[in-house]
Amino acid sequence: MSRATLKDVAEKAGVSTATVSYVLNGTKKTISEETKHKVMEAVRKLDYVTDMNAKSLVVKDSKLIGVVIPQTEGKTHRLFSNNFYSEILSAIEYEARESGYQIIISGMDTDENFVRIAHQRNLDGVIAIGVCSDELLSQFEKIDIPVVLVDSYCKSAKFVNIRIDDALGSYMATKYMIQHGHKDIAFMCGTLKDNGVMQKRLQGYRNALKESAIPFKKAYLCEGKVDFQSGMELAQDIVKNNMPVTAIVTTADILAIGAIKGIKSEGRTVPEDYSIIGFDDISICDYVSPGLTTVKQQISEKGIGAMHMLSNVMKGVKDQDDLVLPVHIVERDSVRSI
Amino acid sequence: MSRATLKDVAEKAGVSTATVSYVLNGTKKTISEETKHKVMEAVRKLDYVTDMNAKSLVVKDSKLIGVVIPQTEGKTHRLFSNNFYSEILSAIEYEARESGYQIIISGMDTDENFVRIAHQRNLDGVIAIGVCSDELLSQFEKIDIPVVLVDSYCKSAKFVNIRIDDALGSYMATKYMIQHGHKDIAFMCGTLKDNGVMQKRLQGYRNALKESAIPFKKAYLCEGKVDFQSGMELAQDIVKNNMPVTAIVTTADILAIGAIKGIKSEGRTVPEDYSIIGFDDISICDYVSPGLTTVKQQISEKGIGAMHMLSNVMKGVKDQDDLVLPVHIVERDSVRSI
Repeated sequence: MSRATLKDVAEKAGVSTATVSYVLNGTKKTISEETKHKVMEAVRKLDYVTDMNAKSLVVKDSKLIGVVIPQTEGKTHRLFSNNFYSEILSAIEYEARESGYQIIISGMDTDENFVRIAHQRNLDGVIAIGVCSDELLSQFEKIDIPVVLVDSYCKSAKFVNIRIDDALGSYMATKYMIQHGHKDIAFMCGTLKDNGVMQKRLQGYRNALKESAIPFKKAYLCEGKVDFQSGMELAQDIVKNNMPVTAIVTTADILAIGAIKGIKSEGRTVPEDYSIIGFDDISICDYVSPGLTTVKQQISEKGIGAMHMLSNVMKGVKDQDDLVLPVHIVERDSVRSI
Repeated sequence: MSRATLKDVAEKAGVSTATVSYVLNGTKKTISEETKHKVMEAVRKLDYVTDMNAKSLVVKDSKLIGVVIPQTEGKTHRLFSNNFYSEILSAIEYEARESGYQIIISGMDTDENFVRIAHQRNLDGVIAIGVCSDELLSQFEKIDIPVVLVDSYCKSAKFVNIRIDDALGSYMATKYMIQHGHKDIAFMCGTLKDNGVMQKRLQGYRNALKESAIPFKKAYLCEGKVDFQSGMELAQDIVKNNMPVTAIVTTADILAIGAIKGIKSEGRTVPEDYSIIGFDDISICDYVSPGLTTVKQQISEKGIGAMHMLSNVMKGVKDQDDLVLPVHIVERDSVRSI
């Protein structure tokens, strides 16, 4: 289909292209109602569509949101090897669509220059999910567009944060195990980074142990990547090394689901031999056997909230408070009393 | 960071903005080497980044690929309620990134106007995944940009297709059940549409039955949506209605995984009471118990292939053959011999 241009509209309306532009962008108040009417008639007849790329040059409004998912584990095909990301992205995409925005996905490699991408695309705003490197945060500081950070403990006044209380979540999970009679509780997590989500969750685990006067044992700290494979291998090690634990607190459902598989592959069972608790409450928790008891965070609400907060920043709302969403335990069948 | 403009570069280089533009776009051959050098020096010093939105107006190259996932089941938050979509999208995103493209996601509602979106964004190309409505296909025909259809049986010369042989896949699944002694085999699928993937798979099921002289029974056809909930409910109905089947052939792993849950919730077991086979081989097949025997399609290869084919069309390669990827059975523990 040959596409109508601004010039076509101008010709059909019998006015200059500048006049069409004034009418469409509302940038001049002295256009007569009759002229406006003629222009809009021509727009309708020609099915004229504003080129957003051109429009964005004038009105600084691309209606495009960048969603950044830092590939902290290195280059990989699998943007969504943890279902948490696909679930939150679903919610952001839906919410953006409802508000007239589209999303562009950047599975940022650690060495990429985001300033370049943001400027090239003239993004209206950015939502960054997960742990951002200091380098990426400093790039965000350089660009003067609204940024919402999801699951970050960054304290810069430049950014708005939406997250949960990660320490509280793991505290609750560990406490839950203790209440079920467990004392030898392993902690299975992704790469620990200063001020990152994993570090906060480790703190929650340690707080719960301390409260019950259970000494923290470094040997019970199982650090890997946040994916199924890693959970499986870490759990196999626990069994093979005869680590005397009866319970495993994990920092992600996908780790816990891998751990269940790893334990089964070593001829042991959940929850008979090991009690396991997840974190997130992704849909798969319900699919597996035994159903995974977990710390539920409201993943969709987090995505929707991030988009709402970004909308507010884009509208010029200042001083939004960080949003901390609640967590709670969802009981299924992967934890037993001893 | 205040961003350098074309004007800044021109001032720094001591030339006109038109000259800077000529140099950057290579649109005029009569610029002296000295001037070129001065301009490029200024570009480097100012860290000038071309605005892709502006550039796309001139060179018709936005480096932006639209990925369309028609929301055939109606408006929903859950773009990825079937993990097949997140897995193929991961592959497309990675492949696009490697080729210097970014992807923009459109979870198209049935009533949306894609012509408008494609023009607004000046997309370089489109990958559409899953069954497209005739309306959407006719919109694709109207836009003069490259389109690759994934999992479509559309015969228009305008589009390139990448898919599997869906009838063959379900034929193999059904044959596999028959070889394991099953004769009363239910078929569980999503909404059947003329010339759609579900219809083709039904045909494969019927072909396998016919070959073994097993009559097709309409009562064994369980039609729902392609999601976990629907699989669970359809399986619960099979148990509750005492449908005398011993095996269930499904058209999606997510349906099969829901079916396993539904059967368990009715106090029956897989594969003892019912043998089940999936379709796709999404990662979750490995997570559930019993592990799901399934018809594997190479989901990542499909995504990568779609992006490769799109690159070819964008480069002007004509008459690409449709690509039909192979399928095979992956044996796990959800089917038993009777």
